[in-house]
Amino acid sequence: MNKTEPRTLPGFMELLPQEQILFNQIKDTIKENYEKFGFLPLDTPIIEDSKVLLAKAGGETEKQIYRFNKGDNDLSLRFDLTVPLAKYVAKNYGDLAFPFRRYQIGKVYRGERQQKGRFREFYQCDIDIIGDEELNIINDAELPNVIYNTFKSLGFAKFTICINNRKILNGLFESLELSDLASDILRVIDKIEKIGKENVIKELEGLNVSLEKITKIMSFIEIDGSTDNKLQALQDLKISNENFEKGLEELKEVVKYMRLFGVPDTNFKVDLTIARGLDYYTGTVYETFLDEYKSLGSICSGGRYENLAEYYTDKKLPGVGISIGLTRLFYQLNEINLIKAEKKSISDILIISMTDNFEYIAKVANKFREDGKKVQIYYENKKVKAKFKYADKLEIPYTVVIGDDEVASGTYTIKNMETGEQETVSV
Amino acid sequence: MNKTEPRTLPGFMELLPQEQILFNQIKDTIKENYEKFGFLPLDTPIIEDSKVLLAKAGGETEKQIYRFNKGDNDLSLRFDLTVPLAKYVAKNYGDLAFPFRRYQIGKVYRGERQQKGRFREFYQCDIDIIGDEELNIINDAELPNVIYNTFKSLGFAKFTICINNRKILNGLFESLELSDLASDILRVIDKIEKIGKENVIKELEGLNVSLEKITKIMSFIEIDGSTDNKLQALQDLKISNENFEKGLEELKEVVKYMRLFGVPDTNFKVDLTIARGLDYYTGTVYETFLDEYKSLGSICSGGRYENLAEYYTDKKLPGVGISIGLTRLFYQLNEINLIKAEKKSISDILIISMTDNFEYIAKVANKFREDGKKVQIYYENKKVKAKFKYADKLEIPYTVVIGDDEVASGTYTIKNMETGEQETVSV
Repeated sequence: MNKTEPRTLPGFMELLPQEQILFNQIKDTIKENYEKFGFLPLDTPIIEDSKVLLAKAGGETEKQIYRFNKGDNDLSLRFDLTVPLAKYVAKNYGDLAFPFRRYQIGKVYRGERQQKGRFREFYQCDIDIIGDEELNIINDAELPNVIYNTFKSLGFAKFTICINNRKILNGLFESLELSDLASDILRVIDKIEKIGKENVIKELEGLNVSLEKITKIMSFIEIDGSTDNKLQALQDLKISNENFEKGLEELKEVVKYMRLFGVPDTNFKVDLTIARGLDYYTGTVYETFLDEYKSLGSICSGGRYENLAEYYTDKKLPGVGISIGLTRLFYQLNEINLIKAEKKSISDILIISMTDNFEYIAKVANKFREDGKKVQIYYENKKVKAKFKYADKLEIPYTVVIGDDEVASGTYTIKNMETGEQETVSV
Repeated sequence: MNKTEPRTLPGFMELLPQEQILFNQIKDTIKENYEKFGFLPLDTPIIEDSKVLLAKAGGETEKQIYRFNKGDNDLSLRFDLTVPLAKYVAKNYGDLAFPFRRYQIGKVYRGERQQKGRFREFYQCDIDIIGDEELNIINDAELPNVIYNTFKSLGFAKFTICINNRKILNGLFESLELSDLASDILRVIDKIEKIGKENVIKELEGLNVSLEKITKIMSFIEIDGSTDNKLQALQDLKISNENFEKGLEELKEVVKYMRLFGVPDTNFKVDLTIARGLDYYTGTVYETFLDEYKSLGSICSGGRYENLAEYYTDKKLPGVGISIGLTRLFYQLNEINLIKAEKKSISDILIISMTDNFEYIAKVANKFREDGKKVQIYYENKKVKAKFKYADKLEIPYTVVIGDDEVASGTYTIKNMETGEQETVSV
């Protein structure tokens, strides 16, 4: 028979079992933390009607979308979890209790240009809180608190959740009469970590911003010091603009509540350069960095938006959301060997039989399972050495050997595969 | 702004939060049981190269496949989890330890004709054990044991795992010199539950099977009585055919080991009519029915196959697998109100604040979370009644009310939302 090469498409992550166990541990930890804060699970389809999914999208994203026809239907694979959420909330408005707090952990699809560390199928782990007409600013502080708890649970010690408020930036531009250029300028500012101050100035000049105004912008984004110093410095700018004042007020509130929640100052900061290159966000914005690996870029981002579902409904649904790009994060952590394995085996115990008394084997296995242990029995007819090698390869921490002696005496011999210690125990 | 109707495609399950919680509980229970028996997790891509995915497929399935081009690539969405498993094992052969025991719980796609209770996107929950060259028959008994434990955990009391062996059927046809018609006859026999004995005979006549042979076939599939009676009756047929004898031997072994594993005779039986309409299976086959709802059809099926990955590799990889079609099962159980909710809320507690002392609120919330409780705080500025209504709507079992009195006395007031009982407790 002609054989087909069993290949997996480039840009699609497919892990070996031990890596998959690690991946799932991280995914489960994220899920547990999201649930700990009362977020409800959601699982929307991966395929949506293109008309619905692309009600808003355009430009860059659209080219990346997996879009195709099946019968008469024009279908697309979801490219994020936010648009499906918007559709869901608009569709089920009457059945939901607001604020609607949901998490969704699922795969999304983007036909990105092929590139190392870029994925075409990847997990996003999203939480969003959607209000009906209005949504308290405390919610903007709760999301970073959830992320703080999540990253702590994942064993990350040194990370910083950076927060800013788009109204401050917008207000600044209004006061400089640069509102028309605001999104262009924000896009430039957003790159400061990547391209440096000099190039930011150069690009702003390219936008025909006067040198005087550039100086003001730069002195604004260079405000430095502790979080309280920054908030004070913003106050001291005495920019008399409604948006600016509102944004500063909100940012102060978010800082205040994050502290009350117990997020330590070592794990968050105000970063006035963060704009999030999307027109979407209207208030608080977040990015999160591993302090020692800033080059990885933001590993968790999001923000506040005015109106989640305006393409589907007249209801005003303000929300705030944040997302962990799990597939990319896992890939990156793996590359720099930063993943700490809690355990790399599913089974706690491999039972190795050297007797024909299967009834006894099954009894011991059932007993372990009743005690909550995960147990595999090795059935194949191989040499004992091969059986232990199997346990080694799967990194199963304990083997239980049962031969006729053990059956006769009602015992089993348990061996710690790491230390080699073993003892014979009564059932 | 023109609004787009926020619709979800027909044939795609999208649940409200409380239903989703139930669905996830079932999915998690299945996962826990699969892991309890040491199955390793796998998560293959949903999109595969069409050439790889369709190396084997043809006929009916092919029409249902979601297949499309993206750039130069001919892509397809997976329609089951077995073909991706075959690809994976062939691809990673050198890195896997055999027997390779994996579970995969994931969505698969079939563009089925639109019909109530039929889904185009649905979860399959698969376990398979793959051997290298050979695989002990005990594995064929372990899978029904896993399924028995899983369904018990799901709270099903009355279900029957039906087992048969394809070699017995094939051997019978060989002895009747009907091998050429074997798969046609099996297809007819497979329908006996649906269409009845009369129609089976009629269809067999339509295949030009002689009346004498039909009588033999019917007396075979009508063998009745206890499991041991059936096995004895098969023996008593004294059919001298290698396949038949091998199949009967295997079936006896599977029955023996299932009993030793502890699967009670009330939850399994030998059913000689089960053939599984696929050419794929070569030995043991399974179907599972809810005794009181046989009309739902088999809710968990599978069997033994000779060679998992022959389209990709020369390695001989025999295996045995079984699958729960979760989406359909959930839909059906919901229709007949058979789903028992363990709990329908994610949050254990909703904290309702009636004080400005947010520090105290946050402290109480953090304490509950440290104790492993799932806690949501209600932040919105609403009347107290609306806050309790929110807890009711989400079916959150407890509310914790904190006002200035509680802050002053270092307490909180906890209310059981079902009974209405409440008490004030010291923090």
